[in-house]
Amino acid sequence: MTTPFDMSLVQRGARLRRTPFFDATQRYGAKGYTVYNHMLFPVRFGDFEEEYWHLIHHVTLWDVAVERQVEITGPDALKLANMLTPRDLSRCAVGQGKYVVITAEDGGIVNDPVLLRLGADHFWLALADSDVLLWARGVALGKGLKVRLCEPDVSPLQVQGPKARPVVEALFGDRVSALRYYHFFETTLDGIPVLVTRTGWTGEVGYEIYLRDGSRGDELWERVMAAGEPHNIRPTGPSDIRRIEAGILNWGADMTLENNVYEVGLERLVDDDKKDDYIGRDALRRIRAAGPRRKLVGVEIGGEPLEMNATKWPVRKEGPLVGQITSAVYSPRLTKNIGYAMLPAESAPAGTRLTVVTPDGDREATVVPMPFIDPEKEIPKT
Amino acid sequence: MTTPFDMSLVQRGARLRRTPFFDATQRYGAKGYTVYNHMLFPVRFGDFEEEYWHLIHHVTLWDVAVERQVEITGPDALKLANMLTPRDLSRCAVGQGKYVVITAEDGGIVNDPVLLRLGADHFWLALADSDVLLWARGVALGKGLKVRLCEPDVSPLQVQGPKARPVVEALFGDRVSALRYYHFFETTLDGIPVLVTRTGWTGEVGYEIYLRDGSRGDELWERVMAAGEPHNIRPTGPSDIRRIEAGILNWGADMTLENNVYEVGLERLVDDDKKDDYIGRDALRRIRAAGPRRKLVGVEIGGEPLEMNATKWPVRKEGPLVGQITSAVYSPRLTKNIGYAMLPAESAPAGTRLTVVTPDGDREATVVPMPFIDPEKEIPKT
Repeated sequence: MTTPFDMSLVQRGARLRRTPFFDATQRYGAKGYTVYNHMLFPVRFGDFEEEYWHLIHHVTLWDVAVERQVEITGPDALKLANMLTPRDLSRCAVGQGKYVVITAEDGGIVNDPVLLRLGADHFWLALADSDVLLWARGVALGKGLKVRLCEPDVSPLQVQGPKARPVVEALFGDRVSALRYYHFFETTLDGIPVLVTRTGWTGEVGYEIYLRDGSRGDELWERVMAAGEPHNIRPTGPSDIRRIEAGILNWGADMTLENNVYEVGLERLVDDDKKDDYIGRDALRRIRAAGPRRKLVGVEIGGEPLEMNATKWPVRKEGPLVGQITSAVYSPRLTKNIGYAMLPAESAPAGTRLTVVTPDGDREATVVPMPFIDPEKEIPKT
Repeated sequence: MTTPFDMSLVQRGARLRRTPFFDATQRYGAKGYTVYNHMLFPVRFGDFEEEYWHLIHHVTLWDVAVERQVEITGPDALKLANMLTPRDLSRCAVGQGKYVVITAEDGGIVNDPVLLRLGADHFWLALADSDVLLWARGVALGKGLKVRLCEPDVSPLQVQGPKARPVVEALFGDRVSALRYYHFFETTLDGIPVLVTRTGWTGEVGYEIYLRDGSRGDELWERVMAAGEPHNIRPTGPSDIRRIEAGILNWGADMTLENNVYEVGLERLVDDDKKDDYIGRDALRRIRAAGPRRKLVGVEIGGEPLEMNATKWPVRKEGPLVGQITSAVYSPRLTKNIGYAMLPAESAPAGTRLTVVTPDGDREATVVPMPFIDPEKEIPKT
């Protein structure tokens, strides 16, 4: 449909993997690819703002096969999974998912996957961009656990936007409307094995379709596009604008192995009454008792609409450098520049005035509450 | 000097890190960036073949800061390092480096770094593209070892080519010519802390300069460029053509976690008489005794000069699919298409005839001995 993107700009040789939807993304005119979990990731098909508005008003299809899975099976699967995260997985039913953090022994965040429980001793972790398979294998080896750990042939698509439900219903029927948030079902579509979750990275209505046979990626893609046609579906990259409006964090930018849940506002992912031990428990208790030294907070940044930051921008408070902007973007709905800043705890209260050092000069900024768009008080989508 | 590369083609937000040499690579007109260890990696400044000839005749400078280090220190540092690899590190002196594989419990190759021993209990692993920090932390946690593991502020440059020595000598003096292969020294350059190794990814004469203060990347880059000016130095990406001629493998393409040393011809990295136990020992003994099921072999591929493969290409033998080409490229010196194929052991003997399924049609190929260019019988560089 358009000239394919010149892959030699981001690739040399066969080190980086292509997703099962790669040919489709080329055919539909992906204009940029980044790399995520050693795999090529289409990040845009058009203009970012145009893709944002399409997500807000219609429905979008994303190739997020880069959310590689770690599969945990074997007699000690629950034991290991429960050891990897501060959430209490004894409360996660088969057919249910949870947003979790994987924590290191010092409380650092190794990754923030969606965990799905497929069976009593069968888990998937849909990963952000770090090699959790190596972490989990290292831990299991040291602890002598009886588990099988692998990266299965599983490749998610996201279908996101206010018209996502009729699209996914057209494909999978009535089960879709009954699906609760973070739950899933397993099924087939013309014999293509898939798993359908009600999850996503937007704050909009959204589903993920996990393809379980990489050889059928193109077929599944075209089925979703066909089901979406009456609803004006279009392929896009993930929307940073929308996820920042919703207060969603991006591992690697807004949080890393150097941060803990108390710093980045993910303390809800720690079940304080969890009975089983897990990696990082002692460290997290110490951090909670002492209070985190740093805090990730929402900021509004003044001036003209910003280009999204490509590096972390330094932040000053009354002169001295105190922290960094981790993500910053212009919200066309709020008609403001919004983002996150990692700041010393004492600079974190709402109302704190800051100066942001952007590549194009300094800008004034203010700490504000998050999320920027409260899902309970949705502003008009106009 | 030229229009900077449009980073939005490969990047969105601040998830991917930039190297300390990023501004320099932009200034010198890098034309493509890939991603390696979560960091942007300039892979070309000009035409690949032109860069190859420059490497063969002159000297080239590469930003390989993406070779991120894992630093191992603490009372159990030697114990852990020695546990991670089949090489016997009791024979690695301080000031010495070794090319090693990091092996999983099933013998799989987690990574193939250059290991440097900076002290009795102080090691660096200069990594290929996988999160060995997570693997090593997972192992250390399970085994209860007293170590400190981190990613230090260390960023290598490669200076490669027949005129590399006078360039590096101009910077660091007489110590350079005395430096033995895989040895290093620590020093400063106008106060910039560095470590200089005689290593590289070419089969040509080469050095790496490990910058130990990321804030001084631009300064170091310009010092190397100035020292190289009389020798016609130029910034390039790594040369796949030259490394394939030399039989050097690229982790992620030619070997992965799914392969072991016996499959990929790296059995020299196992010290059979090593006394200390290490991860994967039992598995490797079993594989050696049974013989590997697959082998990575050299192939010559017929027909016109190839564009380097961007995916693994299927390989047929007398009809059926038997394996894959992992890397294939045209060698302008050998005036042949050369590469590697992963094949069943019974199809691996030299002389075996194959058919390679390229995106542009089938080609005949033959298994040949490696390396393609014997360093002892160097062919004329004309």
